[in-house]
Amino acid sequence: MSTQEPSRGFPQAEFEARLERAQRLMAGAGTDALLLTNEPEVRYFSGFLTQFWQSPTRPWFVVVPRAGKPIAVIPEIGAPLMRRTWVDDVRTWPAPQPDDEGISVLAKTLREVGAATGCVGVPMGPETVLRMPLGDYVRLKSALPQTTWTDATALIRDLRMVKSDAEIAKIAHICAIASDAFRAVPDMAFAGQPLAQTFRAFKTMLLQGGADDVPYLVGGAGPGGYADVISPPSVRPLRTGDVLMMDTGAVHDGYFCDFDRNYAIGRADDASRRAYDTLYRATEAGLRAACPGSTCAGLFQVMQAVIAADGYEAGNVGRFGHGLGMQLTEWPSHRQGDGTVLKPGMVITLEPGLTIGPDRSMVHEENIVVRAGGAQLLSHRATPELPTVG
Amino acid sequence: MSTQEPSRGFPQAEFEARLERAQRLMAGAGTDALLLTNEPEVRYFSGFLTQFWQSPTRPWFVVVPRAGKPIAVIPEIGAPLMRRTWVDDVRTWPAPQPDDEGISVLAKTLREVGAATGCVGVPMGPETVLRMPLGDYVRLKSALPQTTWTDATALIRDLRMVKSDAEIAKIAHICAIASDAFRAVPDMAFAGQPLAQTFRAFKTMLLQGGADDVPYLVGGAGPGGYADVISPPSVRPLRTGDVLMMDTGAVHDGYFCDFDRNYAIGRADDASRRAYDTLYRATEAGLRAACPGSTCAGLFQVMQAVIAADGYEAGNVGRFGHGLGMQLTEWPSHRQGDGTVLKPGMVITLEPGLTIGPDRSMVHEENIVVRAGGAQLLSHRATPELPTVG
Repeated sequence: MSTQEPSRGFPQAEFEARLERAQRLMAGAGTDALLLTNEPEVRYFSGFLTQFWQSPTRPWFVVVPRAGKPIAVIPEIGAPLMRRTWVDDVRTWPAPQPDDEGISVLAKTLREVGAATGCVGVPMGPETVLRMPLGDYVRLKSALPQTTWTDATALIRDLRMVKSDAEIAKIAHICAIASDAFRAVPDMAFAGQPLAQTFRAFKTMLLQGGADDVPYLVGGAGPGGYADVISPPSVRPLRTGDVLMMDTGAVHDGYFCDFDRNYAIGRADDASRRAYDTLYRATEAGLRAACPGSTCAGLFQVMQAVIAADGYEAGNVGRFGHGLGMQLTEWPSHRQGDGTVLKPGMVITLEPGLTIGPDRSMVHEENIVVRAGGAQLLSHRATPELPTVG
Repeated sequence: MSTQEPSRGFPQAEFEARLERAQRLMAGAGTDALLLTNEPEVRYFSGFLTQFWQSPTRPWFVVVPRAGKPIAVIPEIGAPLMRRTWVDDVRTWPAPQPDDEGISVLAKTLREVGAATGCVGVPMGPETVLRMPLGDYVRLKSALPQTTWTDATALIRDLRMVKSDAEIAKIAHICAIASDAFRAVPDMAFAGQPLAQTFRAFKTMLLQGGADDVPYLVGGAGPGGYADVISPPSVRPLRTGDVLMMDTGAVHDGYFCDFDRNYAIGRADDASRRAYDTLYRATEAGLRAACPGSTCAGLFQVMQAVIAADGYEAGNVGRFGHGLGMQLTEWPSHRQGDGTVLKPGMVITLEPGLTIGPDRSMVHEENIVVRAGGAQLLSHRATPELPTVG
């Protein structure tokens, strides 16, 4: 059953806490200002939530100074919405205006907060993107020739990886909505149904169940497994003997779930049943291991050990799960070499996968929050045996 | 009524024609290779279509050499899907692997196509973004110290602004689906309905009508107009006297529509009716003016003249329409200063807006394709008078 819908947005104290943590880290790193350009970063510090990011025309900037509240430097079209957030200082320009797409007002703002001869942190590392034209970034740097530009990825990652209770409540809510929708798949899917129609019906169930949006629904279906896990659906009808997988990133109030479920159409062959069982037990091992103090590499190893013991190879996904929140995937990655230490409040996926044969793979996924006592499931646990449709 | 669903994807000749045009422009500009990192650019040259771009973890690269077919340099997880496109040369690395997130295989590929001592075009200008970590771009440049890096925005823009018949068919199809959904709003919306529920029901209608996805649905409702045009819906119930506006970017096979409709709840006041009439006539003026040879600035002026003659000021959107295609908004912009000359095959929106009073605005929008003889509507034209719901 779905949880009660959490209230929209956040109390101001949430943003104050985020800012305070950021400024403490900035002081430690000698950073005078953060320059943020990407949707999740802008939203994290301001609460600015809109689908208008779909339009690539206009850049959006938030400057986090060493002291004081964030400053928004944004196109005029966004001012009414930004003024309804906790941000007081909203500076605008009449975009689009490609000859000066906010660069002069941004440079002036950075000068005011002491960045002209100081250090500006910009996310430049893994999983980040500078969401402004590269040419404008070069122009901004020319306007501030004495400024030092440093990589703020570690700072932003450390902040965002640990979720507040209010953030966890939003993720838990969308996980519950998706869990209910997945539970109803056996009543909705049937042999003969074109896969694209299965997807459309599932999206509709998610919306009717309370999801705001379904930005991500991928998967596949094939005899005894599927070839890859990122494709849009074909119109090929589901057939008896297929394994159907759907993996969804549905959204509630700007927070994602990200998990999948597998179904056998009509009947399951032994190879599919065995693979399912292995992945179920690999996930169980991950659930037991996901305690504060464990590393992501350690999580990978315990899941991989189950898969290898059963004689399977891992698939092509490159990891066995990741962070989850304002984005479908966030740092860290459960893979060899990611030494991130789990802390209470981290929301992560466990996503072991394996290869059954040529062009046949299977993936399981659950969403959890790390608590002091260990993993707490946010998705409702998949059934221990491959469920059958029809 | 919806058009018949166009076939998915494109024949290979479409990609060959895109490549041939690109390589002709590259030869003229002295560009040895294009380096493309962003979803629409990668898809334009390869046909690679997936929602997996929602995950920021992995960069994706397409290299367009001076001669020969595009080369994909992508994470392993994407190889099965990319191998089903027309691209033959698919090079992968086991992502995520932040220490070398595809940079060494990308540098090697660029060297092979003659870029080590040549010129690589990267989109750096308006409406573009470099979708890879900035630090990795710096690393790539260090690996190719003799390479010249130039801005390829104009080349990409010139290619993408003019759509093929197959592209236009996809946009026409989603426009027809959205037109049908908008026509049904008076049967679906009602006074007392929370706006968020109106949005959810409308999205469901779009999906049931054949849209693949609804990545963009914004709007508002308020007495006699709405404050802004980019907000998510509130839960405030629709009230008699409200003007409701919904603006949708729904998608079919990777191509967007982008238009809105206005409705009076219960009854329309005179001010709303007058504003609607002005915008209807401004759009008519735009439709008459959208001929090959006209400029975007000219389109802006004819629409603005109608709005000014009726004593209104334009709103805060900053332009009266834009290009449309694989993205919700694309170049060009109908605004003072955009001298882009319209050509047959360009798909654009006409989007005049005006201010009725403080926090009260109204916007109209239609989607058209420019033909030799003038504008051809893709959206079904809005009614000449503000329609009433309930």
